[in-house]
Amino acid sequence: MGEEFFTVLPVTEARKKLDDYLPVELRSSERRPLLECLGRRLARPVLSQENVPGFARSTVDGFAVRARDTFGATEGAPAYLRIIGEVRMGEVPECRVGAGEAVRVATGAMLPEGADAAVMIEHTEPLGNGEIEVIRPVGPGENVILPDEDISSGEEIFPTNHLLRPQDLGFLAAVGELELEVWAPLVVGIISTGDEVVPPEAKPRPGQVRDINSYTLAGKVLECGGKPVLYGLVKDDPEMLHQVLRQALEETDIVVVSGGSSVGTRDLTTDVISGLGKPGLVFHGLAIRPGKPTMGAVVGKKPVFGLPGHPAAALISFDLLVAPLLKFGSYRGIKPAALPVPALLSRSLASAPGREDFIRVKLRSKDGKLWADPLLGKSGLLSPMVRGDGIFRIPLEKEGVAAGSEVDVYLFGTDYVL
Amino acid sequence: MGEEFFTVLPVTEARKKLDDYLPVELRSSERRPLLECLGRRLARPVLSQENVPGFARSTVDGFAVRARDTFGATEGAPAYLRIIGEVRMGEVPECRVGAGEAVRVATGAMLPEGADAAVMIEHTEPLGNGEIEVIRPVGPGENVILPDEDISSGEEIFPTNHLLRPQDLGFLAAVGELELEVWAPLVVGIISTGDEVVPPEAKPRPGQVRDINSYTLAGKVLECGGKPVLYGLVKDDPEMLHQVLRQALEETDIVVVSGGSSVGTRDLTTDVISGLGKPGLVFHGLAIRPGKPTMGAVVGKKPVFGLPGHPAAALISFDLLVAPLLKFGSYRGIKPAALPVPALLSRSLASAPGREDFIRVKLRSKDGKLWADPLLGKSGLLSPMVRGDGIFRIPLEKEGVAAGSEVDVYLFGTDYVL
Repeated sequence: MGEEFFTVLPVTEARKKLDDYLPVELRSSERRPLLECLGRRLARPVLSQENVPGFARSTVDGFAVRARDTFGATEGAPAYLRIIGEVRMGEVPECRVGAGEAVRVATGAMLPEGADAAVMIEHTEPLGNGEIEVIRPVGPGENVILPDEDISSGEEIFPTNHLLRPQDLGFLAAVGELELEVWAPLVVGIISTGDEVVPPEAKPRPGQVRDINSYTLAGKVLECGGKPVLYGLVKDDPEMLHQVLRQALEETDIVVVSGGSSVGTRDLTTDVISGLGKPGLVFHGLAIRPGKPTMGAVVGKKPVFGLPGHPAAALISFDLLVAPLLKFGSYRGIKPAALPVPALLSRSLASAPGREDFIRVKLRSKDGKLWADPLLGKSGLLSPMVRGDGIFRIPLEKEGVAAGSEVDVYLFGTDYVL
Repeated sequence: MGEEFFTVLPVTEARKKLDDYLPVELRSSERRPLLECLGRRLARPVLSQENVPGFARSTVDGFAVRARDTFGATEGAPAYLRIIGEVRMGEVPECRVGAGEAVRVATGAMLPEGADAAVMIEHTEPLGNGEIEVIRPVGPGENVILPDEDISSGEEIFPTNHLLRPQDLGFLAAVGELELEVWAPLVVGIISTGDEVVPPEAKPRPGQVRDINSYTLAGKVLECGGKPVLYGLVKDDPEMLHQVLRQALEETDIVVVSGGSSVGTRDLTTDVISGLGKPGLVFHGLAIRPGKPTMGAVVGKKPVFGLPGHPAAALISFDLLVAPLLKFGSYRGIKPAALPVPALLSRSLASAPGREDFIRVKLRSKDGKLWADPLLGKSGLLSPMVRGDGIFRIPLEKEGVAAGSEVDVYLFGTDYVL
């Protein structure tokens, strides 16, 4: 079966077909200590067990007061308050603020009973006799954080699948969540094929190229929170490929075979993948460019993908089919992640209706505008793959994009979802 | 020494002062296998030892030809060529293309001698007698990649400090670079202080808060490629703080103390840091908001930082002072990294000239424009810290930014440098 006989499917249909055979959630969860959860995703929402800050705090250095005692205060007609004590950081106040009274507080200190606001030290004058003048009024709650103002007990802090960043770890420490239920990394078996491909440690003879996909795909698996297992390079030998695929299916959660670029290798890969077991091949060919010769199968409950041989194309197929499983456990679970960035396309590009095109771009700032320069070059070149900052999509129904149009660029390194 | 006596320094001056005492490069390098280098930075430029692809390749399925034999070919007046053989993927061609001859090639196959272009199969018609009609001309080099067209031997592939992404690993595999000289992670000692702060495993009493900074800062260190070592929480006790700081100085490359938010804790931290050794305190107070109560010292050749107690402020001081050392080895080495993203500010913000303001924003897409909503809220709140997508700067000399102005947002999760 050559390339010309592909029945290409739009990506959304291919995903839907796969979802019919795959479990709703491919991942299992595990409890991990907070500090090991950076870059991991939550397996369930985290609800706060506590109010934060848990007590009323001053947000300024100054005096805890009853707001009504300061109403109408001005420089000409200040309010006079008597200092009856001080609250140190971390202390429970011993005093209670009554009418005409003030208590010295530092930023972050607990507000004493009776007080409902804080006056900044800059808006007071000490009189030397244990009294202060207040020269500006404060309203109730002003310069104060209420006990549940940051977060209330029972409130959701982060939803399922939230990707944990440094600031998130700190916030979770603040509410005492020191162990989290996160998704365990899915294990992805990676196999390269192609008679012209040699292992990277070999010196290629003329006509041969080194195995690139094992490395780009392993890197992507890691970047998406999975765990890659490399099965190396299998020459165009159906028995051997079948054997390695069976082993990978037993040892991993998802298997990815990247093909050599020849039609022969692709046909062989299709045949071997089709023969692995039920339900078998789900689709063969995607309505995308690059990445058309992509195939998807399910064996038992495990997905098996055949990706194109060209590294840049294989990465796009990976983004569309493998990354969502690693990040969301199924295609049903796909949620918008990192926002794409609008940029102006620097030259017109043609596309074919009925096909999604994915274009790598280099971003450039000029006159306060962000420009996207498409990295085109000849299709066999590798260097455009490493020169890009991100990627954008020309949708199925569009025939192209005119120079100067705004396109949505997904930035490499961010948690984008194509 | 209270906050009012700070002599605040602009960030660039603080960095310059630190550079005077610090080595030009804080990091040491190490050789690591390619697959362990994802997210690491190169310690020296990688020059290609080879031409890539190393041989002339066809970029299409079709026929290798002499371009001049196709000149002027049209559907009405095709060029007639004789098929004299085929080149399979990975093979060295045995035939040579002479005048009026063509050799069947697949995408990626090596071009036989004599050929200087390839004709797409779609632009040919088989005649059944071992000949083809060519119905469109090709120019010399058309549909062909030359031996050094992707990369030439001796050419720089990536510069020093390049942050390695999945696609970069593949490209390095392609040129046979399977071990790389990368920077070893700098080890950062993290100490929290403050009498009101309790360890996260404790249940805070009223007036107390959990240690957040140990976690946010450890996460940032990891994100910037460093290795965090947590020394836990030190109460406001100068002897104890001195002891822990001395231990951290011996065991790590950079020491970071985040202060409680009280003036007393800050003063104590300043005194202890000042007493650690020569050259000592380099600056105390930065012309930034938030983050003003930041101090920097050098002890021997090691930097010691006192960061503000508030987690959001501590993160900004970290971005400005610690992150550049982790990513570039010194402030001298700072290079532009991930481009900021232009977005429209949704409301006006005031600033003070002579001070840099850093504002966290939530990004929102509306009518094809990217809007940045500043996350302001009361200064003591933690939740704005986790709701942001990125951060932008109001420069020293500006008095504010008007609603609708374009601001440059550095996206969290990208390799930005403030």
